[in-house]
Amino acid sequence: MKKIITFGEIMLRLGAPGYLRLTQCNRFDVSFAGSEANVAVSLANYGLPVKYVTRLPDNPISDRCVRELNSYNVDTESVIRGGKRIGILYLETGSNSRPSRVIYDREDSAFATICADSIDWKLIFRDAQWFHWTGITPALSENAAEVCRMAIKTANEMGLTVSCDINYRKNLWNYGKSAAEVMPDLVAGCDIIAGNEEDCEKVFGIKNDNSSFLSVCQQMMERFPKCRKMAVSNRESVNANHNLWSAVLYSDGTLKQSPKYDITDIVDRVGSGDSFMGALIFGLLSFDNDDQKSLDFAVAASALKHTIKGDYNQVSVEEVLNLMNGDSSGRIKR
Amino acid sequence: MKKIITFGEIMLRLGAPGYLRLTQCNRFDVSFAGSEANVAVSLANYGLPVKYVTRLPDNPISDRCVRELNSYNVDTESVIRGGKRIGILYLETGSNSRPSRVIYDREDSAFATICADSIDWKLIFRDAQWFHWTGITPALSENAAEVCRMAIKTANEMGLTVSCDINYRKNLWNYGKSAAEVMPDLVAGCDIIAGNEEDCEKVFGIKNDNSSFLSVCQQMMERFPKCRKMAVSNRESVNANHNLWSAVLYSDGTLKQSPKYDITDIVDRVGSGDSFMGALIFGLLSFDNDDQKSLDFAVAASALKHTIKGDYNQVSVEEVLNLMNGDSSGRIKR
Amino acid sequence: MKKIITFGEIMLRLGAPGYLRLTQCNRFDVSFAGSEANVAVSLANYGLPVKYVTRLPDNPISDRCVRELNSYNVDTESVIRGGKRIGILYLETGSNSRPSRVIYDREDSAFATICADSIDWKLIFRDAQWFHWTGITPALSENAAEVCRMAIKTANEMGLTVSCDINYRKNLWNYGKSAAEVMPDLVAGCDIIAGNEEDCEKVFGIKNDNSSFLSVCQQMMERFPKCRKMAVSNRESVNANHNLWSAVLYSDGTLKQSPKYDITDIVDRVGSGDSFMGALIFGLLSFDNDDQKSLDFAVAASALKHTIKGDYNQVSVEEVLNLMNGDSSGRIKR
Amino acid sequence: MKKIITFGEIMLRLGAPGYLRLTQCNRFDVSFAGSEANVAVSLANYGLPVKYVTRLPDNPISDRCVRELNSYNVDTESVIRGGKRIGILYLETGSNSRPSRVIYDREDSAFATICADSIDWKLIFRDAQWFHWTGITPALSENAAEVCRMAIKTANEMGLTVSCDINYRKNLWNYGKSAAEVMPDLVAGCDIIAGNEEDCEKVFGIKNDNSSFLSVCQQMMERFPKCRKMAVSNRESVNANHNLWSAVLYSDGTLKQSPKYDITDIVDRVGSGDSFMGALIFGLLSFDNDDQKSLDFAVAASALKHTIKGDYNQVSVEEVLNLMNGDSSGRIKR
Amino acid sequence: MKKIITFGEIMLRLGAPGYLRLTQCNRFDVSFAGSEANVAVSLANYGLPVKYVTRLPDNPISDRCVRELNSYNVDTESVIRGGKRIGILYLETGSNSRPSRVIYDREDSAFATICADSIDWKLIFRDAQWFHWTGITPALSENAAEVCRMAIKTANEMGLTVSCDINYRKNLWNYGKSAAEVMPDLVAGCDIIAGNEEDCEKVFGIKNDNSSFLSVCQQMMERFPKCRKMAVSNRESVNANHNLWSAVLYSDGTLKQSPKYDITDIVDRVGSGDSFMGALIFGLLSFDNDDQKSLDFAVAASALKHTIKGDYNQVSVEEVLNLMNGDSSGRIKR
Amino acid sequence: MKKIITFGEIMLRLGAPGYLRLTQCNRFDVSFAGSEANVAVSLANYGLPVKYVTRLPDNPISDRCVRELNSYNVDTESVIRGGKRIGILYLETGSNSRPSRVIYDREDSAFATICADSIDWKLIFRDAQWFHWTGITPALSENAAEVCRMAIKTANEMGLTVSCDINYRKNLWNYGKSAAEVMPDLVAGCDIIAGNEEDCEKVFGIKNDNSSFLSVCQQMMERFPKCRKMAVSNRESVNANHNLWSAVLYSDGTLKQSPKYDITDIVDRVGSGDSFMGALIFGLLSFDNDDQKSLDFAVAASALKHTIKGDYNQVSVEEVLNLMNGDSSGRIKR
Repeated sequence: MKKIITFGEIMLRLGAPGYLRLTQCNRFDVSFAGSEANVAVSLANYGLPVKYVTRLPDNPISDRCVRELNSYNVDTESVIRGGKRIGILYLETGSNSRPSRVIYDREDSAFATICADSIDWKLIFRDAQWFHWTGITPALSENAAEVCRMAIKTANEMGLTVSCDINYRKNLWNYGKSAAEVMPDLVAGCDIIAGNEEDCEKVFGIKNDNSSFLSVCQQMMERFPKCRKMAVSNRESVNANHNLWSAVLYSDGTLKQSPKYDITDIVDRVGSGDSFMGALIFGLLSFDNDDQKSLDFAVAASALKHTIKGDYNQVSVEEVLNLMNGDSSGRIKR
Repeated sequence: MKKIITFGEIMLRLGAPGYLRLTQCNRFDVSFAGSEANVAVSLANYGLPVKYVTRLPDNPISDRCVRELNSYNVDTESVIRGGKRIGILYLETGSNSRPSRVIYDREDSAFATICADSIDWKLIFRDAQWFHWTGITPALSENAAEVCRMAIKTANEMGLTVSCDINYRKNLWNYGKSAAEVMPDLVAGCDIIAGNEEDCEKVFGIKNDNSSFLSVCQQMMERFPKCRKMAVSNRESVNANHNLWSAVLYSDGTLKQSPKYDITDIVDRVGSGDSFMGALIFGLLSFDNDDQKSLDFAVAASALKHTIKGDYNQVSVEEVLNLMNGDSSGRIKR
Repeated sequence: MKKIITFGEIMLRLGAPGYLRLTQCNRFDVSFAGSEANVAVSLANYGLPVKYVTRLPDNPISDRCVRELNSYNVDTESVIRGGKRIGILYLETGSNSRPSRVIYDREDSAFATICADSIDWKLIFRDAQWFHWTGITPALSENAAEVCRMAIKTANEMGLTVSCDINYRKNLWNYGKSAAEVMPDLVAGCDIIAGNEEDCEKVFGIKNDNSSFLSVCQQMMERFPKCRKMAVSNRESVNANHNLWSAVLYSDGTLKQSPKYDITDIVDRVGSGDSFMGALIFGLLSFDNDDQKSLDFAVAASALKHTIKGDYNQVSVEEVLNLMNGDSSGRIKR
Repeated sequence: MKKIITFGEIMLRLGAPGYLRLTQCNRFDVSFAGSEANVAVSLANYGLPVKYVTRLPDNPISDRCVRELNSYNVDTESVIRGGKRIGILYLETGSNSRPSRVIYDREDSAFATICADSIDWKLIFRDAQWFHWTGITPALSENAAEVCRMAIKTANEMGLTVSCDINYRKNLWNYGKSAAEVMPDLVAGCDIIAGNEEDCEKVFGIKNDNSSFLSVCQQMMERFPKCRKMAVSNRESVNANHNLWSAVLYSDGTLKQSPKYDITDIVDRVGSGDSFMGALIFGLLSFDNDDQKSLDFAVAASALKHTIKGDYNQVSVEEVLNLMNGDSSGRIKR
Repeated sequence: MKKIITFGEIMLRLGAPGYLRLTQCNRFDVSFAGSEANVAVSLANYGLPVKYVTRLPDNPISDRCVRELNSYNVDTESVIRGGKRIGILYLETGSNSRPSRVIYDREDSAFATICADSIDWKLIFRDAQWFHWTGITPALSENAAEVCRMAIKTANEMGLTVSCDINYRKNLWNYGKSAAEVMPDLVAGCDIIAGNEEDCEKVFGIKNDNSSFLSVCQQMMERFPKCRKMAVSNRESVNANHNLWSAVLYSDGTLKQSPKYDITDIVDRVGSGDSFMGALIFGLLSFDNDDQKSLDFAVAASALKHTIKGDYNQVSVEEVLNLMNGDSSGRIKR
Repeated sequence: MKKIITFGEIMLRLGAPGYLRLTQCNRFDVSFAGSEANVAVSLANYGLPVKYVTRLPDNPISDRCVRELNSYNVDTESVIRGGKRIGILYLETGSNSRPSRVIYDREDSAFATICADSIDWKLIFRDAQWFHWTGITPALSENAAEVCRMAIKTANEMGLTVSCDINYRKNLWNYGKSAAEVMPDLVAGCDIIAGNEEDCEKVFGIKNDNSSFLSVCQQMMERFPKCRKMAVSNRESVNANHNLWSAVLYSDGTLKQSPKYDITDIVDRVGSGDSFMGALIFGLLSFDNDDQKSLDFAVAASALKHTIKGDYNQVSVEEVLNLMNGDSSGRIKR
């Protein structure tokens, strides 16, 4: 099977243990996190061949990062080394009405200072079928946006499927251009788009004018004619430990609706959007064009992600199918 | 007071910390677990004299196991040493729709390879009044089943009360005989039987044909005339953190119904069935034939078990009575 | 701004980790706790100048305690050293229907054996505007009660606002006098009183004779004419992890009612009453006599306290205002 | 075999982890410690029947303490419950030239406030052959000294062997009498005495006037004619991690000298004197009057104790014999 | 570069933390260990392509094991899944005169019960240049010995270099044949042999009859004419924390002698022999037939291994060269 | 007493626990570190009034940093907030011949990007007597060097004593100027200089041309005539766990020599140079011009620092004096 390629920044994730505040704890749990790496791990976890492309400095922290990706069977051969530092994400896990808090320290990271022509996309895409990127990459720096643009262009030329998670994060767009200026050109090269209501409104000015997401999807499709499918995830946040989670997938002119999961006792919701994206790509590649099944798989997989510590989803296809098939009782498996 | 004797396998329980998956953690929490040992600890905890009989290899892991049982005042004098290894149970704690997972590595354990005549039941039962076993023991090996059979036979001859928890675990019956073949003869020697709906159906082919458990109990009593009381626990699993828990006790021709506890924020539900059994035996021995009180005590005790880490229930009689008497508010005791 | 002074005992808090019982754990989490210190930390946390007065022995455990208070910007200059030991509080955190448990080992502590004339209140109150004490102090020993009495008397003479949290703990009153004998004289010197229904009934014999707390407040005001405002917090305990939390504030002849917070997944509720008191004092000093706002701030702050480990509330004014303004969704802040 | 009885105070030992200072750590390692309990655990560990007598308050901390003693097969049946608190020992482990530090918080403990006639020594000594006490007990309070005196007197009357470890701790003698006043009468009832040079000088005014300990032993024997054997341990402290350790035993008119162990990389030296005492009693009871072998066993056992975390020595007879027989290479045993 | 293949059993390594005894700890540190896997990790770590062949059961513990090997860039594609259990190694780390202790629980493991013809060595060796095995494999079971024999035979036929570490472990040879019966045939197919004095004497009856190892090497070369080089490591054990470490390499008729390292403050010596073997193979493949340099590299690498926690050596070529070049000062690198 | 002011960068110190490599650990120990902050903590620890000036971003990590400084009684009132990030230092602790490793990630930190005129030194020095800086500050950026220059100039004008630790770190001088270009002007304003042999050679081209440091000191004094005293510390590194540590102090025309400490079993040597500096300043301010005593105090204090985890020295004056007075036995203090 041909490879799926994802590209983006991966950061050192330093988490306060349990529900401690960042100001309270005297140790940090160490892991790594990045939207596109998370997607790569999900895909590798389901057994697909996947290569992750990023730029990391040459130090032991990066070695540990690469080692972890290797452990999940993500191909790290094309990770380039250079730059001064790995970006950092400090995470404090909230509870009840105290929200979780993410503090980024990613400016001037090895990835943000990537050279525009340092990646040979033709070589990387040679044995690939799919390229996935997110709206975080072009937010980081002019150069990162340019490398992303070249990747999309090359992928289009070479006939890969291109998917994008819009992933709008207001606070990241600091280098002088706005998402509204940069994103449309990039999204225009995509076959599959994922986003949520806020993404569409903030980046493309497309509002959800009725209770379903149908209108949003239709407007997006009109605006980006290359796009064949659009997925919109929907989180209703009762409190920091309790969310409702569902999604829709618009394709072939219809809006498929997933079940809605009632997720209490959340273990870690960071990365759940990426686990949705990874599972959706897996479904689209594995379920014989059964878009409803792909959507349901993606929502079930990402519902399970809420029970997994760390950014990476670590559930098996069988576990996701069990939940899809209605077993949400949590009874002990012996 | 004369002793209660329990007999069965005890395993090293290696638990992934918190909600981590077994593939994620780099340490295991170490404890010990075994249905009959769990019952013994509950009984000792409530102040009754109890002896636990098992077979363990001669190594420091077993020493630690025996030491822990000693600490709870369980008499380990008759534990025999021999064989090659202690059985192991790997435990991963689930959350929400991700179930907890138990992986057994207990084949060829010291217990499973016990010699049929290595235990002098007459000696052990000399100062005893009660013998408790479970359906796990005869599932493990031909020899284990035979030692169990001899224990029941001797107990019957010497006039002990015999209790059994059917505890049907499909995956354990691997040595060539089925539960349906082996269990009836053993259960026929019992005065008190505990089980659940699935146990009765899978082992004895007795189905619950109405909404209560009355019919199941009546059929069991007919089939096993020595039996005087039958307890059936009932777990409704909302998700891995949230269960409803209740039980019935059939005796003297009537079905006593316990309150139903709504158990959220479960800490550890493994061993809760055993904590029910231990508390029931305690009640039957302590509450002057007040079967309703015994049942209510057993259900309250096992509801509290869901808040205790590890297989062993560690709550006092006073704490159980407080809950039975309606104080489920969880207000701080100062 | 002039200082707020709080006075009382601070203890070493030894907590069993997670939901382990005190009999299970092989390490204790170390922190410090004391009603009046908790109030001081809350106030310092919101940016007010606050001095905490207590007596501690001269050893490294006390050094650690003082160091921790310093870290929160609480002025410890007037902490006096002497006596033999620091009081200890063992804490076991309950879950569901198993209550949390606090075991005090505070008799003969440095604080309880304080000399009646060892504190120069005139000096301490020189640059102060407010004095806060609680009903725990006079419960501890004749001497502690006497020092408290002198503090209130001096504060009254020097024109400070005096606040009191009645904080009735039956088991602490062991030195031969009852709360009913000692407290009224002390409370008579207060401008602001906080308490709950049980406090008023047990200490002053004032019962809540209707569904609101209006009658209790009115009776208290009549009995203690110096008092201008009375706050009554109300906890409804669904179980150890789930409480409902609200309060009322009686002032200027009317009873202000706060919103009621539904607090699930409680992290640590010990100290929440103190966090209410600290936030209330902050509000009364900061919100231009807007008593409703002060009350709402206090209830929101203390609702957030339930998500913070340790006795000290560690939330910012901004975080409290966010919750007051309705954002209880717990959505991640990036 | 008849029992050995030990009697004294056991404390909660709260240790700063690793080499952290007490002011640095945010958790304490929890264990229990007491000279006479340490001796009891050593003896039980070598397989001898041993009963430990003390007084503990009625709370979960004491339950944990008793549970731990049970786990080592120490008979706790005669532990009496009462009093307000368990004594506490805070421990900070030093390194190199920074010494370890012990802070006691044991005044007014349940043991120190023991009633003079609360223990029925006749009953306890009924099936006993040996009574062991230390000079710590009479240092704690008038009452503790009196109970100790009665124990020795009864033991003498009933023909038990009585052993004593002088264990002089200057800072403990605070109740108005000095060791020099109290100890001689008690020591007069002893058959076996252990001590070190400082003990003999400070308590009995007996100085070591030559390079060996012969003169000290001879003077002690003259002064206490009931005494048959005297052991003197000798620690040369290079630094906190590196000690030299040896002992002599005077009996039958000769001074037996042990090998001297060079102990680097010390794990925990607290309790090593007690492990010497426990192993010496074991040797004297097991090695057919081979005093040299008993001494060598005691020194080897206590040398190994320096490698064991916690006050209790946890090494087998076989391990001690291996070291006695010259295997100090530390090569891995597979 | 063509691959190096190693083959053998890998076990779950459960280690007591710090210097705790297995009977003391309530958690185990989780890692994996196996002589041939250790060699594979060393080789991958130095940048060589390496494939590891073993058999593991199909469960999450094995998944974790494979994931860890992947992380080090060891090719696990040819790991076969089957059998019931992964072997286990319990490890207790000693200090000073208390030895470390290894307890094996590896009987009936997936590897020991491997089918004789389940591995297609021709396929695996297709792109390989070197095959490494150890004397542990034929000790485990008749089948394991047979698979090993086939591997050596195929490797010889296909012209691979074959290396062997004799690694004699008396307690493992339990299936009815002795090392002396089985090993010679296997060793006869080897080009490079590593062992120590005890190995040669116990397995081949070759004694070291003078102070150097020259005679042993010459006798081995005579007996096994295919062998071109023989390495003998030499550990002098001062105590569990302090070893002297050196080796010799016999080739081309001369005995090369390495420097001797004085290793104090050992962190973890388990796996150091394997780290020697891995570094030796690396040297022989990388240093242009400079056998002295290969030997020195191997000894320096394995000296460094004593400072690394876990069985796997994790030091870079640069770090080893630094030590070889004389920098053993341990000065901080900034 | 007038204040001592120190100025420099403080970093988040992320340490791999125990002896784990940075690539192995899954948590980091969190503390803070910076040469000048370390000096400030030492001084505050000995009871002197000290203010620390730095620049930190406005986030919870900085809050934690300031809180920790507060806890040690370091005045943080003049810490300015701004910039994007706090510098980071990753620390891996070596053992034996594996060196500890420090990885800096401090470029573009809030401190390095400080504005040249953002600090009002006149205000800060108003109630100060001493200003301390190190050669790290001018290495970080042009701006940092400029702020440092202004501080020295103002301190000179206002008559403060100025001390400097040359602290040459080659890898930090990256902004285009060399230490040799920048440092002399700054050092010219100093009264007290500390350094080591390498510092003097690399920064000032002054070589140690005989076995003592006399010549170096004399040359430095000639070159920098304002300087009255020069201290040179000397570390001989046996290995990562074992160092020899001593120093000399040149003043009044003579070279005072300290004792040399043999430091085995090092706990943490990072920050020991700063602990030397802090203790030296304390001595010079406290010991009535007894320079030998000041030197001896500084060396003893920094010898003890090697036993303390973290950058901050946490020993009392009494503990240092004990060691100075010859008690290096490490015997337990009870």
